[in-house]
Amino acid sequence: MDGERLVARCRELALLSEEDGRLTRPFGTAAMARARDLVGAWMAEAGLEVRVDAALNLLGRRPGTDPGAGTLLAGSHLDTVRDAGPFDGQLGVVTAVALAERLHARGARLPFALDVVGFSDEEGLRFGAPYLGSRALAGTFDDALLELVDGDGVRLADALGAAGGDPAGAVRGAAARAGERLRGYLEVHLEQGPVLEDAALPVGVVSAIAGATRAVVRFAGRPGHAGTVPMAARHDALCAASELVLAAERAGRATPALVATVGRMDVEPGAPNVVPGAAVASLDVRHPDDAVRRTAVDEVVTAARAAAAARAVEVEVDTLLDTPAVAMDPALSDALAFAVLSLNDVPVRRLPSGAGHDAAALAARMPVAMLFVRCVGGISHDPREEVAPADAEVALDVLERAVLSLAGGGP
Amino acid sequence: MDGERLVARCRELALLSEEDGRLTRPFGTAAMARARDLVGAWMAEAGLEVRVDAALNLLGRRPGTDPGAGTLLAGSHLDTVRDAGPFDGQLGVVTAVALAERLHARGARLPFALDVVGFSDEEGLRFGAPYLGSRALAGTFDDALLELVDGDGVRLADALGAAGGDPAGAVRGAAARAGERLRGYLEVHLEQGPVLEDAALPVGVVSAIAGATRAVVRFAGRPGHAGTVPMAARHDALCAASELVLAAERAGRATPALVATVGRMDVEPGAPNVVPGAAVASLDVRHPDDAVRRTAVDEVVTAARAAAAARAVEVEVDTLLDTPAVAMDPALSDALAFAVLSLNDVPVRRLPSGAGHDAAALAARMPVAMLFVRCVGGISHDPREEVAPADAEVALDVLERAVLSLAGGGP
Repeated sequence: MDGERLVARCRELALLSEEDGRLTRPFGTAAMARARDLVGAWMAEAGLEVRVDAALNLLGRRPGTDPGAGTLLAGSHLDTVRDAGPFDGQLGVVTAVALAERLHARGARLPFALDVVGFSDEEGLRFGAPYLGSRALAGTFDDALLELVDGDGVRLADALGAAGGDPAGAVRGAAARAGERLRGYLEVHLEQGPVLEDAALPVGVVSAIAGATRAVVRFAGRPGHAGTVPMAARHDALCAASELVLAAERAGRATPALVATVGRMDVEPGAPNVVPGAAVASLDVRHPDDAVRRTAVDEVVTAARAAAAARAVEVEVDTLLDTPAVAMDPALSDALAFAVLSLNDVPVRRLPSGAGHDAAALAARMPVAMLFVRCVGGISHDPREEVAPADAEVALDVLERAVLSLAGGGP
Repeated sequence: MDGERLVARCRELALLSEEDGRLTRPFGTAAMARARDLVGAWMAEAGLEVRVDAALNLLGRRPGTDPGAGTLLAGSHLDTVRDAGPFDGQLGVVTAVALAERLHARGARLPFALDVVGFSDEEGLRFGAPYLGSRALAGTFDDALLELVDGDGVRLADALGAAGGDPAGAVRGAAARAGERLRGYLEVHLEQGPVLEDAALPVGVVSAIAGATRAVVRFAGRPGHAGTVPMAARHDALCAASELVLAAERAGRATPALVATVGRMDVEPGAPNVVPGAAVASLDVRHPDDAVRRTAVDEVVTAARAAAAARAVEVEVDTLLDTPAVAMDPALSDALAFAVLSLNDVPVRRLPSGAGHDAAALAARMPVAMLFVRCVGGISHDPREEVAPADAEVALDVLERAVLSLAGGGP
């Protein structure tokens, strides 16, 4: 059963780590080289021509019959977060390899070439900047990224060179494959949320990658003795910040597909017998429609300002990030949707992705589409991450059917 | 001007510290011995018989004319918090010394003896247990306290012995002065809050020392990705905890003289892009009427439980402390109140003390009363702590008048 094999390969890959006893595989490390070797061997077995590009992306090529038909890409990333689970990224790579294997086994002839990709960096763990691999392929890898420094003071340019990459090639040309016709990118990825599980569906088609606002909201009140400062004389920063937390929750509940989160809350001085003088809260708001998201952010910030003003607490909002939503290509997405329908006789669920993915970076260069796979318990970025073999197999079947339909042929 | 001298003495005392550049004077330290020496010298100048008791309390005695009339005590504590201000505790000690000085200067003959006290520990900084000095004098110094260990692993019994005290005497007998008639304790203390300043009054008479509930409220939800877990599927511990914060604020505002505070809020994992899986909040509620306080605590806890239940978040409430309110003695308090009226022609303000004081511990052994002195900006436990010399002088005048009225004589 192919599903079992996909899960087994993910678990085998998950043993290649920079840390004992848990999976941590950052960009440009020895563990990444070993992961490329293992996946490269699987690629070769599947008849693919294996190479590593200037940005350390692993590529396995199956040539097409029509040189003018260009190249279709499929894959995901091989790097991980710290103490990661075995499916985030890896599942998309092994599924794309298995697709190539099936095509190889049946001697399928597709007009376009297929490039199976294992991206070298999506999580941004080592240098704090995500999508290093996919940005290089998209041609949006900025010069300035080369100057980033990791926790040990190593420059990205030096790390890339030392690991066998080519800094200049990552920035322009070589990795980006200028002049080539890249006709699209299909990515299978763990959902990392509970939507498909709640709907009892093995897979779903991504409608868009949500745009995100990240902000820090700082409340400055006045500290005081919890026993001696009467309520009317207080300027309690945590009370104001608590209204922000609840305003974010309210906004999220009121608007379909909006998620709004205060994940961090630091209180100063933070002693049980001292009225909080300062509170720092994070704010994270995401929605597939940028206008809806910005309206929600405004509402939440307005509520926070009112809560602060009511307590004569100062408030300061720093927006750290405002990432626009990324649209999925309708034709590629429909190919996935039709494949779901034809294989499973279940309704196609379209759902936004709240997290970013390589597809978001690649959208700058080519049409993209994504297929989400049900995630047990909605748990991700955690060693307990789990995917049912049967669901992985459905994803592979859908991917195969979609690619064949794009080639204009049946199975 | 006596007020200037009181303030100057507090500032001189504040130089005696265990830390360079800031006032930190814990129980049983060399800095405490130097403080006793300095205050002891002032006591001797004021004609007092100086001694140090088994619990390292400094006592300066002015004998009375009637051996059966017993002893009236007046003073406060000589230890401090870390990075303390110069008036918390010290002001009460130097004011009581100045009272003795005035009586000495005029050769006043009082029937009862006067013991000016500088307590060895009220803040509990070194051993984490407050009122070591006043509990010894009250006869409530428990054996078990001797086994407490400081941050360096030193046992309280050993620290007390090494500093010249007597552990056995602190526990029973010697310090508690069994069999002696102790007719009462008067304490002048910095308000440590803004009430008198807001009312434009130099001093106020304490109505009671508020009872206090301290609890830790733990919320256990489920962590999740801030982008991928829809609002309806969340179990956000910080959202539930934020309702606790606001319920405490509401309870405090709704009930006169109640203060309710969440001073600490720890969020796990505390990352901007992760839905909080756990939150730990402190809860501190104080009121001079124990029944009112307990009702308020119940209300706040009920609101927290409802907020948690609404989000399928678990909640656990640990009550760490439930200290009953301490009543002030009506006769001693009235003596202070009449003195305020006769000296200042201003209304007497009675106000509860939200913080604990030596008087709370001594109430187990004798009648107690307290006079609060206006605190600039309400700031205390901070080097910026300030008292106006004129206010300190009013406190001294009130204390003198009250003591003379208790002796049945005029000034």
